[in-house]
Amino acid sequence: MKVVGQELPRVEIFEKVTGQSVFGADVSPGGKVLHGKMVLSPHAHARITAIHTERAERLPGVRAVVTAADVPAVRYGKFVRDEEYFASTKVRYVGDRIAAVAAVDEETAEEAARLIEVDYEVLPAVTSGLEAMEPDAPMIHDGYADYWAQPSVEDRRGNVCNHKQLLRGDVEAGFAEADRVFEHRFHAPMVHQTYIEPHTALARFDASGRATVWVPTQAQFPLRDAIAEILDMPMTKVRVIPTEIGGGFGGKISPTVEPAAVALARKARAPVRIVMSRGEDFQTTNPRHPFHLRYKTGVKLDGTITAREIEAVLGTGYSSGSGVMISQGAAVRAPGPYRIPNLKIDSYCVYTNTPTCGAYRGPAGPQLAFASESQIDIIARELGIDPVEMRVRNAMEDGDETPAGVPLKDVHVKETVRKAAEALDAAPRAADGNIGRGMAAAHWLVGGMASSAGVKLNEDGTFAILTGLVDLSGASTSLAQIAAEVLGVSLDDVHVRTADTDFAPHSTISAGSQALKSMGGAVLLAARDVKRQIQQVAADKLEADPGDLEVGENKVFVKGSPERSVSFREVGRAALEHARGPIVSTQSVSRLIPHPAVAAHAAEVEVDPETGHVRILRYVAVQDVGTAVNPLSVRGQIEGGVMQGLGQALSEACTFTDGKMDNPNLLDYKIFSALDAPPVEVHLIQHPCATGPLGAKGVGEPPIIPPPAVIANAVHDAVGVRIHDLPVTPEKIVRALRAKQAEQQP
Amino acid sequence: MKVVGQELPRVEIFEKVTGQSVFGADVSPGGKVLHGKMVLSPHAHARITAIHTERAERLPGVRAVVTAADVPAVRYGKFVRDEEYFASTKVRYVGDRIAAVAAVDEETAEEAARLIEVDYEVLPAVTSGLEAMEPDAPMIHDGYADYWAQPSVEDRRGNVCNHKQLLRGDVEAGFAEADRVFEHRFHAPMVHQTYIEPHTALARFDASGRATVWVPTQAQFPLRDAIAEILDMPMTKVRVIPTEIGGGFGGKISPTVEPAAVALARKARAPVRIVMSRGEDFQTTNPRHPFHLRYKTGVKLDGTITAREIEAVLGTGYSSGSGVMISQGAAVRAPGPYRIPNLKIDSYCVYTNTPTCGAYRGPAGPQLAFASESQIDIIARELGIDPVEMRVRNAMEDGDETPAGVPLKDVHVKETVRKAAEALDAAPRAADGNIGRGMAAAHWLVGGMASSAGVKLNEDGTFAILTGLVDLSGASTSLAQIAAEVLGVSLDDVHVRTADTDFAPHSTISAGSQALKSMGGAVLLAARDVKRQIQQVAADKLEADPGDLEVGENKVFVKGSPERSVSFREVGRAALEHARGPIVSTQSVSRLIPHPAVAAHAAEVEVDPETGHVRILRYVAVQDVGTAVNPLSVRGQIEGGVMQGLGQALSEACTFTDGKMDNPNLLDYKIFSALDAPPVEVHLIQHPCATGPLGAKGVGEPPIIPPPAVIANAVHDAVGVRIHDLPVTPEKIVRALRAKQAEQQP
Repeated sequence: MKVVGQELPRVEIFEKVTGQSVFGADVSPGGKVLHGKMVLSPHAHARITAIHTERAERLPGVRAVVTAADVPAVRYGKFVRDEEYFASTKVRYVGDRIAAVAAVDEETAEEAARLIEVDYEVLPAVTSGLEAMEPDAPMIHDGYADYWAQPSVEDRRGNVCNHKQLLRGDVEAGFAEADRVFEHRFHAPMVHQTYIEPHTALARFDASGRATVWVPTQAQFPLRDAIAEILDMPMTKVRVIPTEIGGGFGGKISPTVEPAAVALARKARAPVRIVMSRGEDFQTTNPRHPFHLRYKTGVKLDGTITAREIEAVLGTGYSSGSGVMISQGAAVRAPGPYRIPNLKIDSYCVYTNTPTCGAYRGPAGPQLAFASESQIDIIARELGIDPVEMRVRNAMEDGDETPAGVPLKDVHVKETVRKAAEALDAAPRAADGNIGRGMAAAHWLVGGMASSAGVKLNEDGTFAILTGLVDLSGASTSLAQIAAEVLGVSLDDVHVRTADTDFAPHSTISAGSQALKSMGGAVLLAARDVKRQIQQVAADKLEADPGDLEVGENKVFVKGSPERSVSFREVGRAALEHARGPIVSTQSVSRLIPHPAVAAHAAEVEVDPETGHVRILRYVAVQDVGTAVNPLSVRGQIEGGVMQGLGQALSEACTFTDGKMDNPNLLDYKIFSALDAPPVEVHLIQHPCATGPLGAKGVGEPPIIPPPAVIANAVHDAVGVRIHDLPVTPEKIVRALRAKQAEQQP
Repeated sequence: MKVVGQELPRVEIFEKVTGQSVFGADVSPGGKVLHGKMVLSPHAHARITAIHTERAERLPGVRAVVTAADVPAVRYGKFVRDEEYFASTKVRYVGDRIAAVAAVDEETAEEAARLIEVDYEVLPAVTSGLEAMEPDAPMIHDGYADYWAQPSVEDRRGNVCNHKQLLRGDVEAGFAEADRVFEHRFHAPMVHQTYIEPHTALARFDASGRATVWVPTQAQFPLRDAIAEILDMPMTKVRVIPTEIGGGFGGKISPTVEPAAVALARKARAPVRIVMSRGEDFQTTNPRHPFHLRYKTGVKLDGTITAREIEAVLGTGYSSGSGVMISQGAAVRAPGPYRIPNLKIDSYCVYTNTPTCGAYRGPAGPQLAFASESQIDIIARELGIDPVEMRVRNAMEDGDETPAGVPLKDVHVKETVRKAAEALDAAPRAADGNIGRGMAAAHWLVGGMASSAGVKLNEDGTFAILTGLVDLSGASTSLAQIAAEVLGVSLDDVHVRTADTDFAPHSTISAGSQALKSMGGAVLLAARDVKRQIQQVAADKLEADPGDLEVGENKVFVKGSPERSVSFREVGRAALEHARGPIVSTQSVSRLIPHPAVAAHAAEVEVDPETGHVRILRYVAVQDVGTAVNPLSVRGQIEGGVMQGLGQALSEACTFTDGKMDNPNLLDYKIFSALDAPPVEVHLIQHPCATGPLGAKGVGEPPIIPPPAVIANAVHDAVGVRIHDLPVTPEKIVRALRAKQAEQQP
């Protein structure tokens, strides 16, 4: 291949580096824009007895105040959802939406927000999923009977809103067959996506009853649908225009301030912009689900796993949101990339008095892998087996099935794991200090969702791709590479035109590692159809049979007689005068067969036993990527994923006191920054994947999954203490070392 | 049909009536926009010896000055075009572009424009096409040999830049066979489209070398290509975004200020807007070509035409522009909608020292019809035949050929002419005063040009049409009606999304009466394909054969079992989960078979012999429209065309003294206003046309063509004087009446 596989700079690079890209808060639709501000609950759990908006409404400069009276709860017949956009009778977390105001300037909007008084009866709150499962826990939702269950709720005990069980084989027989059975508990806290750009939306409401929303989003079509549903508008009366996006990582899929902006614009009859503060963003958006995990694993002495019993408790926050889906997906991936004959997996989704958690790159991935891969390491060490060999021995292979019974192809667990070990072993351990090495493997299942793309031949012989896929991490460049490859042109000859919900054909979301597989699949079909049309028009011009024609170097030529040729530019012009008309094709895909994408990471760390500080000396990330469409982008994705994963491994956690987040700012919530970043050695395993466009696999999620387990395993290797509770902070290491010392002392 | 044929309000009506539609000069791209101003020639013909820009460049607040040094003449190898964007060595009309400036405000831009000094050697000028053909006329272009001829120039005598001759039969034999031969000369002056919104453009130039131009245009794709060519940029580095348009009538097809705006934006590195004054617009844009016409016609005593010899001299202005094409098209339509066995037509395109003329609704139509239909009237009266019967006797019919040899179908000249006569005759003549009646018939040939359209099924069961067709006169509504008809839904269920050159598939221009035929044809194909896809997905859901399914009332049902149905909304949702993916189709057409569209108008007027004032008492417009997709739009088009035609008949003319236009303002240039407008009685002849979408014919051009001849014929009928020179002003009538009186006196 000539274009696919090349390390090419992004197609939008000039706009990005010159600052011409327009991000959410910078959109200017012309004319005066009002400032919107949210009024949020200060209580984690309280009954609302009254909301007083009169003083705010009377403040000069205030143009609109909206509450649940303007945006009533969505009803499905007699049922309601477990989430109101504006709280009406009860608040369920600190940050729950009470009202929104729009005013002529920011100061007035803030003053108006302060003037809205709410009378509360404070209730006891619970922020831990495990505690919320207790029989005496406060009930976050009183009216289950009136709820619309999505999907059906089988087990309504207390705050549990979903329970998924997967069974394979006979887990008790598996444990009986085992030589050893291990059981451990792990905990992963809530962490936040911490994109650079906080949530923002600009909304306009037209005379014809149409809303236009400019917003940085990963998911313009679902966002359009959600806004329409919340505001009880026809779906296609809402137009979502995705702006350039300053990071999403799954956190920009669900609606946040958009419905409020539209409701304010509708009431004020003027455009309204809402920009979240960092504190609002931390406390009211959709962070990663906290998990309590129990892993019980039976093994033979040679390391063969005979059975695994897993209990996962996911704290979803005050509403189910995507928690049910993520909890059920977690059940499928919980055993890790291994062939295990006997399984019993129980996954619980539990309400808590926190923000509703949502998608964060590799949802449930790092949490599960932390537990599963820590335990694999513990077992291997206990059995005296090489942890690498234990992983290889149990690795999934082609033909194995997921716990949900889906057979897998293009499985490369063994090669990926071995490569990670080899790469780390290629250099000797550092000589001095408390040095440790650890590894972890993980997999992600990449399906493909509904996507359509258009490809047109321009009259100058270049091509345009029409897509609704938001470019989050180089997707536009990769789509252009796929089209360029099919059409035999260079990347410069393909223009990607990313359109909004009105103009684009349907697009999948930019999430779940499946964006390129889905939209790339549609581009592939459309480009191939365009190539066929080009050959038809060229055949007429060259008086040849279309089957005798080949394309290359921006022209069509007769096989074996390259001097008989016609350029794409000539074909583009000729098509306008040809009875078939301009050359263009729009094609669709959906429900693509899932493939597994595997990552294996290995690291060497040095631990300071006095301070507990962990220094990463080397970090190796190996990933099975099928065909790397743009290795530069793929490496960038992997490096970025590792950094985010290391933050979760070492420092990140949203913590709560009395239901209020302790650290909703970038000083107290510590993400991994450039100063913390170790060099990352990236190796790509490339075997073209049968179900990806030109062989590509999804690459976005896998690299964020292994780091917590890698670090926990390496720290144990270095200083002999095992941390079961993320993040692996210096405090925990020092405390564990002291406990170990105390234990060892007579 | 349920939606096609309905009188429906326009889809964009809310935006229009509430003032939310954004027209050219109102576009706000965000951020500071510079004001651009053109520097224009005050001389009709002069050599440029120097251009001094230094003083302007030094003026504080000036950000850029551009001249021919920045925008050199377009070259094709060693050849140049006969039009430079900025004049370099010679100016050829009053208004020729010398330079453009961009400054921080309008006053500074105007001051800078005044500070640009040009040294001229003034040359003799010629503004009449006939005079420009004389051997001793000033030569407007010296360097023919270096010109790129488009199309090939056969006869380079003096300022003649093109000569087209059409011959049929033996014209001398035809005259020999005739009982009487009539020869008359006619003249139609230059007239201006006088849209409400003067030309304007806003241009931005990006870091990546891409230009974006917001502009009210009828022809976004050709305008993109023209801007790119003039500025020597790759075509797809220019993005034209069509704004709402305040009238075009053919005058917003060619570039005017757009290249200057881009050149200024490129040099100033900031967005630049240029808005023409009305005076600039009158003097520098693309008005209707003036024609000198000689018609020689041989007839039998029964009115049968045996031969016609026509000489047409079109003054193109200082460059050929569209003059060659229009001059050649004029040759084809010059004989009128008649079957004439022997023809000799010579059409000359001649340079003059005026603005380059261009397309104006029905290019060459009113001028030719004025001559042809005046002469038919003269002949009928001379022979004592009913002019209606003379037209019917000679009328074209199905199977007849154009003078260019193209066979015609769906020809309805006789019925249209008879209906106009009948409708006028339905009421008796006014009893008192100098009352006269007149009629005229005309035809327009409507082809179909390259167009693509996309149709998608939205997930709420509505549809969107993606098109690049600028909506000039209701086209979007009619496109939606065609799709709604095919898909069995109401107009509210179809959203038209008009996109720009980056996002839209190729579109024809909104001109020449072919917009709906062309784009409607593409929409028809795409809607049918979408219907087929819907049936496929529905067949799977209903477990039925696609062939057994019908659509209607927003659902798909099994023929004969309407209770077995699935709604479009359900299909839209199901398609996302169906392996075929979202339902969307993009289809193309081009080179559609031309059909004739015929108009016959008749009027009754009262002429005041003292003042020469013509009062229109009744006006009947009959038009052969095939299927009227939206009769409300069709009637509106016809009424508007009649009003414009009446302005040309009675009052409009661009006149020149020493090469300078005398009346470049709306006070001295008199268009027909609402106060002048007579009621117009519109009758539609509806026979579905085989080559139009769902039977529709083009409707835009025909109604502007007959009025000048109708008025001239009615005035003659009223007071017995014949005006051969448009417009038919009171002065000319009074002068003719006095001359007639003088003649009649002994």
